[in-house]
Amino acid sequence: MTTQETRHGPQSVRGPRINKGLVIVNTGNGKGKTTAAMGVLMRAWGRDMKVVMLQFIKHTTANFGEQRAAEKMGVTVRAMGDGFTWRSQDLDASADLARALWEDAKEVIAAGEFDLVILDEFTYPMHYGWLPVEDVVDALKARPEMQHVIITGRHAPEALVEYADLVTEMNVVKHPYDAGIKAQPGIEF
Amino acid sequence: MTTQETRHGPQSVRGPRINKGLVIVNTGNGKGKTTAAMGVLMRAWGRDMKVVMLQFIKHTTANFGEQRAAEKMGVTVRAMGDGFTWRSQDLDASADLARALWEDAKEVIAAGEFDLVILDEFTYPMHYGWLPVEDVVDALKARPEMQHVIITGRHAPEALVEYADLVTEMNVVKHPYDAGIKAQPGIEF
Repeated sequence: MTTQETRHGPQSVRGPRINKGLVIVNTGNGKGKTTAAMGVLMRAWGRDMKVVMLQFIKHTTANFGEQRAAEKMGVTVRAMGDGFTWRSQDLDASADLARALWEDAKEVIAAGEFDLVILDEFTYPMHYGWLPVEDVVDALKARPEMQHVIITGRHAPEALVEYADLVTEMNVVKHPYDAGIKAQPGIEF
Repeated sequence: MTTQETRHGPQSVRGPRINKGLVIVNTGNGKGKTTAAMGVLMRAWGRDMKVVMLQFIKHTTANFGEQRAAEKMGVTVRAMGDGFTWRSQDLDASADLARALWEDAKEVIAAGEFDLVILDEFTYPMHYGWLPVEDVVDALKARPEMQHVIITGRHAPEALVEYADLVTEMNVVKHPYDAGIKAQPGIEF
């Protein structure tokens, strides 16, 4: 059993002692980045923490499983994007929107109203060069001490990974799409 | 943009067409295996699907974020284990318990009452040789056609990966424990 193999959790008898808000990054090309963030949202909500999820890419009209669940739970999962994909025609408009949304998100972070702030698919605006990662790291550094922030998306910028406390890479081992199976409601969206 | 990079989802204009229950495996040494399963549970619950999570390792007395959230949501997240860890003294008892729990789980799967069945940390009983993986795959093959099953845990057996539709490996890039930060309630448990 290596250190890597050690299971961390409430059962640990000895262990580290610092208590602080975490910056968590879920990246990689596999499924589970947004989904794991939603799992943390559920867990935190279970402990009556104040949680919010801001979705940078999903279109404002999105009404997927996560939006429906959020409504039932009374929490905010706000799809704020324009549905940007690599097929989008007007990248300038997407870039402008991403910058405006980040201004909103910065205010949410600084206000400290929430114990957990999820910035879903937020790596993309940084990866595409629409937002300087330094600006993001500065905002994270200045946030309330006990606030947790989760950022999801492929291609997490190195400076963000460097600053983050917990970084996980979700990798595809096998995807049903490759076997001709379509995305299933309630499971993938 | 490689095929690997393609984002699958409801926006796909062309694509595969088979509609079926998925067997999903979240494995690897990183965070997010159970958490992503909880995210799917939340998403499915948001669509009013019937969901259940059976936890094979977490102790029956567990009252973590996920159990509390489940209670608020009115869904079953049942911790059925004996808190088995590598420190456990009585492995025979843990093995017997795991086998008994699997008999329960098999009935839940076969009954078809749930649209989504999550078997949390269920790879371990297989990995330790307490349950034959063939028995598990047979039960999955015989399940109701539209039922989704998610299995989480490290060391997913090869025969299970072979049968599964969607397999993701969560890998540690960086863990806060290594920086002396303890597991945070609402985030990690």
